[in-house]
Amino acid sequence: MSEATYDVVAIGNAIVDILSQSDDEFIVEQGMTKGSMALMFSPADADALYAKMGPGREVSGGSAANTVAGMAAMGAKCGFIGQVADDQLGEVFAHDIRAAGVDFGTAARAGDPSTARCLIFVTPDGQRTMNTFLGASQFLPASALDLDLIAAGAILYLEGYLWDPEEPRAAMRKAIEVARAHGRKVAFTLSDIFCISRHGGDFRQLIADGLIDILFANENELLALCEHEDFESAVAHIHGKVPVLVVTRSEKGAIALVGTERVSVPAEPIAKVVDTTGAGDLFAAGFLFGQARGLGTEASLKLGAICAAEIIQHYGARPECDLKALVEAKLG
Amino acid sequence: MSEATYDVVAIGNAIVDILSQSDDEFIVEQGMTKGSMALMFSPADADALYAKMGPGREVSGGSAANTVAGMAAMGAKCGFIGQVADDQLGEVFAHDIRAAGVDFGTAARAGDPSTARCLIFVTPDGQRTMNTFLGASQFLPASALDLDLIAAGAILYLEGYLWDPEEPRAAMRKAIEVARAHGRKVAFTLSDIFCISRHGGDFRQLIADGLIDILFANENELLALCEHEDFESAVAHIHGKVPVLVVTRSEKGAIALVGTERVSVPAEPIAKVVDTTGAGDLFAAGFLFGQARGLGTEASLKLGAICAAEIIQHYGARPECDLKALVEAKLG
Repeated sequence: MSEATYDVVAIGNAIVDILSQSDDEFIVEQGMTKGSMALMFSPADADALYAKMGPGREVSGGSAANTVAGMAAMGAKCGFIGQVADDQLGEVFAHDIRAAGVDFGTAARAGDPSTARCLIFVTPDGQRTMNTFLGASQFLPASALDLDLIAAGAILYLEGYLWDPEEPRAAMRKAIEVARAHGRKVAFTLSDIFCISRHGGDFRQLIADGLIDILFANENELLALCEHEDFESAVAHIHGKVPVLVVTRSEKGAIALVGTERVSVPAEPIAKVVDTTGAGDLFAAGFLFGQARGLGTEASLKLGAICAAEIIQHYGARPECDLKALVEAKLG
Repeated sequence: MSEATYDVVAIGNAIVDILSQSDDEFIVEQGMTKGSMALMFSPADADALYAKMGPGREVSGGSAANTVAGMAAMGAKCGFIGQVADDQLGEVFAHDIRAAGVDFGTAARAGDPSTARCLIFVTPDGQRTMNTFLGASQFLPASALDLDLIAAGAILYLEGYLWDPEEPRAAMRKAIEVARAHGRKVAFTLSDIFCISRHGGDFRQLIADGLIDILFANENELLALCEHEDFESAVAHIHGKVPVLVVTRSEKGAIALVGTERVSVPAEPIAKVVDTTGAGDLFAAGFLFGQARGLGTEASLKLGAICAAEIIQHYGARPECDLKALVEAKLG
């Protein structure tokens, strides 16, 4: 087993977010579930919802992409695999992730559909409600995987969102095989409660098969995965089934279960929640960065909390401040 | 002369801004003049500079477009004329200006070049340095003007930036004729010192011909237009040559010369300058909104200062807060 030359290699949806302010009434009128992610299956549906949206701002997104962009901002070496189309939004995505310092080499896909976009409605409480048109992103084939890159990553990081479309799901299974064959760890984020409704069986099987070393979830996702209604009973249910479990709990902070150890940290104090888009993604960035640098569980959680606090104080899921300087200042 | 049904109809570049943080060294290395706007003439130049840029965020821009978007946010009825291409950035521009409540009907232009984009480097002091690829925007033909819309606007608002390309320049001359023929006022912003270097002769002639009723400039632009090195002597030089002159002076506030009257207001206090992109555009929005509502010179200037203060406290040149509520609260 050769030494890993990347801290993390991630596979995820390659999405440009379109963020707009919204009121709660709009979320209700449109039948959206606040705080969750819904898929839009046709360009016509996406266009119709976009037409109802207020003025937007575009920021590159994609859950796993946000995580590696955050890690790279702190100085980690990361790679990303995801499918964009050969169009302007695809250029924006590719530019932004490379400019963040992440290696990204997946070739753009010619023709329709267009690059994935996510219409994000941000309510006055800072909560985000997402509607994603997966476009080209759902056509990431296993053949597009850079197997050498995956083999070179100490950790392979996968997002549950990408489990929805068939081709990337097969690609991720292949990637897990390759990572395992090279003795690498696999980290997985559960992404969204509806994603678990659709694919919880697969996710539970991956865990039962011992294919996941580090699992990320928020509180609701943990309940959905464990099919429990109470946080502590869900924790008791899953304890010991994955080597490392990280659960984010919004303003209640986060916990990690590592073997028999249970560690918790409080949320970082913040001035104002502007937009929670990317909070979980950046928490994962901080935690994985800590792990990559050999920090303990508590310090890794603390880094996660710092990164999440930065991202929710502005629009968009990519860091705006010098994240490296921020975490150095905070950790001392 | 029929009654105007629009407060302002604007003609300007239809641009999507790509904003990124930058350090001062980069501005110097690239030979840019901090605070100004440079044109990029080829897509290859634009791509090469974009490749050197950090992660970006995209927000619709365009000077006159920002002004009418700001006015509409306060409740004014506005129209916009500008040329986008039939591409994703063109869709973003069209969506955003319509979602802001502005009537926009200029048909997208098929084929190359793409929609205009402006690469904006924001330094830690909040100053913005712009590099614009005009793309489709430079091909706005006089034939694309909605003459009924222009005739229906109490004020026709034009940006100096659009004087650069030949077709829109001819279109703007035509628009001035139409507005004049219908007894409408013409407002003009000088846009940029280099723009005045290129077209100062034309601008001075428009003023001499009595074709401009309201002229907007910042301090440096006024000096360039008047070819004076001292603010007071420039003011003395131009006083009486335009019915209304508004000069913005950054942290020194702004003045207006209306006939023999000279009125000044201080800058609004702000917490932190994040990004000055659109400061002048939103000042114009506030001033013109005051004029449209029949407010006096001082109240109109105050509105300008309030709008400019809002826009420089976040990235991008389109309002993020409820501008209508803000100005109502501030004016009482």
